Amino acid sequence: MKSFGSDNHSGVHPAVLTAIQEANTGHQPAYGADSVTEEARRLFRQTFGPDAEVFFVFTGTAANTLALRALCRPFEAVVATSAAHLNEDECGAPEYVAGNKILAFPPVEGKLSLDVIDRLRINPHDPHRVVPRLVTLTQATELGTVYSLDELRAITERAHARGLLVHMDGARLANAAVHLGCELADVTTAVGIDALSFGGTKNGLLCAEALVFLKPDLAPSFAFIRKQSMQLASKMRYLSCQFLPYLQDQLWKKNAGQANAMALYLRERLSQLPGCEIPYPTQANEVFAVLPPPIAKIMQEKARAYAWDGDLHRFVTSFDTMKEDVDALFVGSGTP
Amino acid sequence: MKSFGSDNHSGVHPAVLTAIQEANTGHQPAYGADSVTEEARRLFRQTFGPDAEVFFVFTGTAANTLALRALCRPFEAVVATSAAHLNEDECGAPEYVAGNKILAFPPVEGKLSLDVIDRLRINPHDPHRVVPRLVTLTQATELGTVYSLDELRAITERAHARGLLVHMDGARLANAAVHLGCELADVTTAVGIDALSFGGTKNGLLCAEALVFLKPDLAPSFAFIRKQSMQLASKMRYLSCQFLPYLQDQLWKKNAGQANAMALYLRERLSQLPGCEIPYPTQANEVFAVLPPPIAKIMQEKARAYAWDGDLHRFVTSFDTMKEDVDALFVGSGTP
Amino acid sequence: MKSFGSDNHSGVHPAVLTAIQEANTGHQPAYGADSVTEEARRLFRQTFGPDAEVFFVFTGTAANTLALRALCRPFEAVVATSAAHLNEDECGAPEYVAGNKILAFPPVEGKLSLDVIDRLRINPHDPHRVVPRLVTLTQATELGTVYSLDELRAITERAHARGLLVHMDGARLANAAVHLGCELADVTTAVGIDALSFGGTKNGLLCAEALVFLKPDLAPSFAFIRKQSMQLASKMRYLSCQFLPYLQDQLWKKNAGQANAMALYLRERLSQLPGCEIPYPTQANEVFAVLPPPIAKIMQEKARAYAWDGDLHRFVTSFDTMKEDVDALFVGSGTP
Amino acid sequence: MKSFGSDNHSGVHPAVLTAIQEANTGHQPAYGADSVTEEARRLFRQTFGPDAEVFFVFTGTAANTLALRALCRPFEAVVATSAAHLNEDECGAPEYVAGNKILAFPPVEGKLSLDVIDRLRINPHDPHRVVPRLVTLTQATELGTVYSLDELRAITERAHARGLLVHMDGARLANAAVHLGCELADVTTAVGIDALSFGGTKNGLLCAEALVFLKPDLAPSFAFIRKQSMQLASKMRYLSCQFLPYLQDQLWKKNAGQANAMALYLRERLSQLPGCEIPYPTQANEVFAVLPPPIAKIMQEKARAYAWDGDLHRFVTSFDTMKEDVDALFVGSGTP
Repeated sequence: MKSFGSDNHSGVHPAVLTAIQEANTGHQPAYGADSVTEEARRLFRQTFGPDAEVFFVFTGTAANTLALRALCRPFEAVVATSAAHLNEDECGAPEYVAGNKILAFPPVEGKLSLDVIDRLRINPHDPHRVVPRLVTLTQATELGTVYSLDELRAITERAHARGLLVHMDGARLANAAVHLGCELADVTTAVGIDALSFGGTKNGLLCAEALVFLKPDLAPSFAFIRKQSMQLASKMRYLSCQFLPYLQDQLWKKNAGQANAMALYLRERLSQLPGCEIPYPTQANEVFAVLPPPIAKIMQEKARAYAWDGDLHRFVTSFDTMKEDVDALFVGSGTP
Repeated sequence: MKSFGSDNHSGVHPAVLTAIQEANTGHQPAYGADSVTEEARRLFRQTFGPDAEVFFVFTGTAANTLALRALCRPFEAVVATSAAHLNEDECGAPEYVAGNKILAFPPVEGKLSLDVIDRLRINPHDPHRVVPRLVTLTQATELGTVYSLDELRAITERAHARGLLVHMDGARLANAAVHLGCELADVTTAVGIDALSFGGTKNGLLCAEALVFLKPDLAPSFAFIRKQSMQLASKMRYLSCQFLPYLQDQLWKKNAGQANAMALYLRERLSQLPGCEIPYPTQANEVFAVLPPPIAKIMQEKARAYAWDGDLHRFVTSFDTMKEDVDALFVGSGTP
Repeated sequence: MKSFGSDNHSGVHPAVLTAIQEANTGHQPAYGADSVTEEARRLFRQTFGPDAEVFFVFTGTAANTLALRALCRPFEAVVATSAAHLNEDECGAPEYVAGNKILAFPPVEGKLSLDVIDRLRINPHDPHRVVPRLVTLTQATELGTVYSLDELRAITERAHARGLLVHMDGARLANAAVHLGCELADVTTAVGIDALSFGGTKNGLLCAEALVFLKPDLAPSFAFIRKQSMQLASKMRYLSCQFLPYLQDQLWKKNAGQANAMALYLRERLSQLPGCEIPYPTQANEVFAVLPPPIAKIMQEKARAYAWDGDLHRFVTSFDTMKEDVDALFVGSGTP
Repeated sequence: MKSFGSDNHSGVHPAVLTAIQEANTGHQPAYGADSVTEEARRLFRQTFGPDAEVFFVFTGTAANTLALRALCRPFEAVVATSAAHLNEDECGAPEYVAGNKILAFPPVEGKLSLDVIDRLRINPHDPHRVVPRLVTLTQATELGTVYSLDELRAITERAHARGLLVHMDGARLANAAVHLGCELADVTTAVGIDALSFGGTKNGLLCAEALVFLKPDLAPSFAFIRKQSMQLASKMRYLSCQFLPYLQDQLWKKNAGQANAMALYLRERLSQLPGCEIPYPTQANEVFAVLPPPIAKIMQEKARAYAWDGDLHRFVTSFDTMKEDVDALFVGSGTP
């Protein structure tokens, strides 16, 4: 039975396991000086642009938190929605490890409003208040919606005009790009993003996340920050190799495409249930539905649907979710 | 060509890759609530004793640093040799992440002297000085030597008598246990160690380390510490599964046995080189040799021997180092 | 010309300077082992109850931040209003120094709503989220309002029932107590507060704040926390002596009484200005007024009124504000 | 009875109390925007050179620790003697608050050896090790000795040549300057020191320390660092005013001169005691003496001499120590 509780519940795509096996050829230098990692670095530059500098880390929380360590001093602040993973689901790692305060604003359909940026108090002469330095966006958002390219451009322009950098938490960037029908660079480098947490684990990798600086000179000492933050893999090639099929063979697109399609199909099926309401657009691989309690109970068991907030439940599809897996949820539900 | 630069240069043992493939069976709960991790936890209790509570993390630096976060408050101090990995090679992660000061003492053949513990100033009423709280030992040591069981017992007794806990950095614990001809519990739980960083990556795993609390109630909130320290794997089963063959099939012993044997053979070969001196016993998988400059140059190239300190060079053997690999270093050297 | 910009703009009450001179009698032990500090400690116990344990620090930011270091572990969270000084005006010291995340909720007339406490998600088994541990209230609030004793009792009861501690930021506690017509213990110990930042500097002291633990065993290692946080005064007696007249001779009451009375008088005068609106009750020594721009300009100059938010301005009275000082603001204003 | 336990045991010089009273003239802007602080800043520039930028803080531990926060990133290291106050007596504040590792080397008569700097491993490409960035010296040293101007020049030249900055912990800088017969700038700015913790409290001030950046652009955001580190005084004028007589009227010289003279006199008297050995030169206001146990017992009681290490005892003289105070220690001792 497939789980709809999280895309972390799925396993590893076979092509990724193959890449790991292929990387396992004798001895190689450690800590990223190996040929596999070099090839992965090249692919990141090819994918995100010639200035892209990638550092592999173990978790999305690490990618996000280390982006802060790299780009903000401890008395500078991070601007986010209150729903941001960084704000809600990382057990205070940004505050504890990077030392930064997060200024959290209520999201609108999961997104940060442009006027939040306009209204920020930024006073480099008032030491009583942290100084906003970095805007962070989640793409796709925690509510399964996707910023359009125009929305992203507007945010980075406004942020840059106010002296702020823009970080994208791209734990589900692949899903967003598939929704937008664009390449990865289109939704990041081309719209002015400065640094990117590029997720792999939720989309079929075994355990591999990448922090990518998209512009030059953003983090000259990042190798030290990564090591001091306990995120430097000794046998780096086994992290980096996972990105070879992911980027070279566009596994990211194939996997996210399947997940997104299944989310739309699931949405359609859910919408036919009596009393079910779906409050947000379904633009990536997450469906949020308000469920009547009896149905909620069934879906928590069958689908492992996650009780997000009261009656609102979250369903997440994965790269290996199939039509039959969705249909299985509705057996006996009386819907066609 | 095999490298003798580090045991991190070697790859992954085939049995570990097999375990990863076997763990890849459909969906499972994330964050360690899966059946593979449950089985791994059981194996740790079977191996280290019924009180052993294991938490998987990504790196040895993380295991060491989080042991500090778990066992010390920030104004408490850690007692170590100055050669300790924790003190020398972790880019200040213990200080930065855990906030603790390390009191470092010169090692004797890589080991912490018993009288260091006796001479510690411990004054719980003087807030000007950090209060020693934790002794950390590396087994096998950074200089390739191994504490005897008696030495360990003496240290933990003396430390406990002074109110100190004892942590073991066991990045190469398998090599030490093989040298001592004992089981893993004999050299840890049975001699009074409180917490253990149990290494896997240097001995044939892909990327998996374990922090093991060997006595009850040592770290009731550690799940939060791990998450906040960015060391909680979402697809945990791919970390934990690596320990199944490692512990169940005693792969740790087989791998370390091979590496240790090759270290002894390498020592023998090196000792025949003119002008070569070997200052420390070779008790694990590291050989330290003072090399005349011309030989040093050759060995840095052929063996990737690491210039440790002036003319003193470090050679490390791995689970897959073969006699031929050692012999290949001496082709043309004129030694038999 | 007196300033209404902040109660920090006022000077030191003569009785405090006298106390400092009287403390200056030859040599005394350092770091708080002197007889003056012993007497001050006794006075705190007499004032706040026999369990009160006081630690003197240099700033209000330090008292608040160190309360967090003492009472929360870094993965625990602090519940506050978004207007809290701790959240807005301490440059992220709580996050940087104590490592804690602050969960900030919109205030109602400056106060924390009781239902915020009821609605907190507290899950000691979910390591993804910080666990609420401490509620912090500001009394008098940052908006010049005062929690009633009933309101405080309700909050501490509800908080304790949910396993939370309650801290009071009492930078202006004296003003609140005078408004309530009660003694200092009535509004702290008696209503269940666990720890108190007791301010002195804003009410006529030279530079002295106190962190008071009101219940036993709350912070057994606090002496180390204070020293490690750079808040241990060597010549402690010059801090502690300031509290002798403050507590023994009830200087706190006299000073706050004058400031409060002047705030009410100022409110009355302001309310007669055309177009001036006063949105909150004036219960301590702060008056908030929405001022038409031409009047705002005059008041920023004459009174150093602080532009709080758009047209909303803050006026603060001090222990030495006199009726004539208030009247001087209105010369030429056409009001009686 | 005067204490020889520490110069923190002495009180406040009357001229300092007078300065405090004179600063107490009505309302002034807070946080250092007042006229008294402006005057103090001017005096620091006059004393230490036109580039000197001063920030007042509350304790010497704060001055030292915040120098680190300002000048080092957390993965950079601080080079000190193991006897440094920063290393021994600040309860790990440098590690906890600034995050830096301290590389501690055995002192020679209290001083850092020049060859320590030469032998430092500095590798900006090896992320496993912290990178030395700052050398810190204590002048006068913790053992009562004083670096000569030539020694200081040699250290700063060597350090700068290796890309390191040099900080001076000048808790007893006044005593050192008096010993050298030079002005304060001669022993700091003129010999190439980059940043200075300039102590006042140990030499007759009430509670005031200064962190002085002696070269331009060293700490452009220091105002934020100070506030976030809980060291921004609201009523700043009462800190800064203490330096007016201290610098303008050379109170530092007068006070330190008296303390130094009394230390020499005490040394002479001690040296006549049977069995007493004085291992270090007495160049400031500290005398170290090895005392036979019966004498040690007497001196611990009468003089509050501090048992530094076994039989070695420390005596400290203060600005108000008089010849009679020294003589009183020897009444009945049988020495002339």
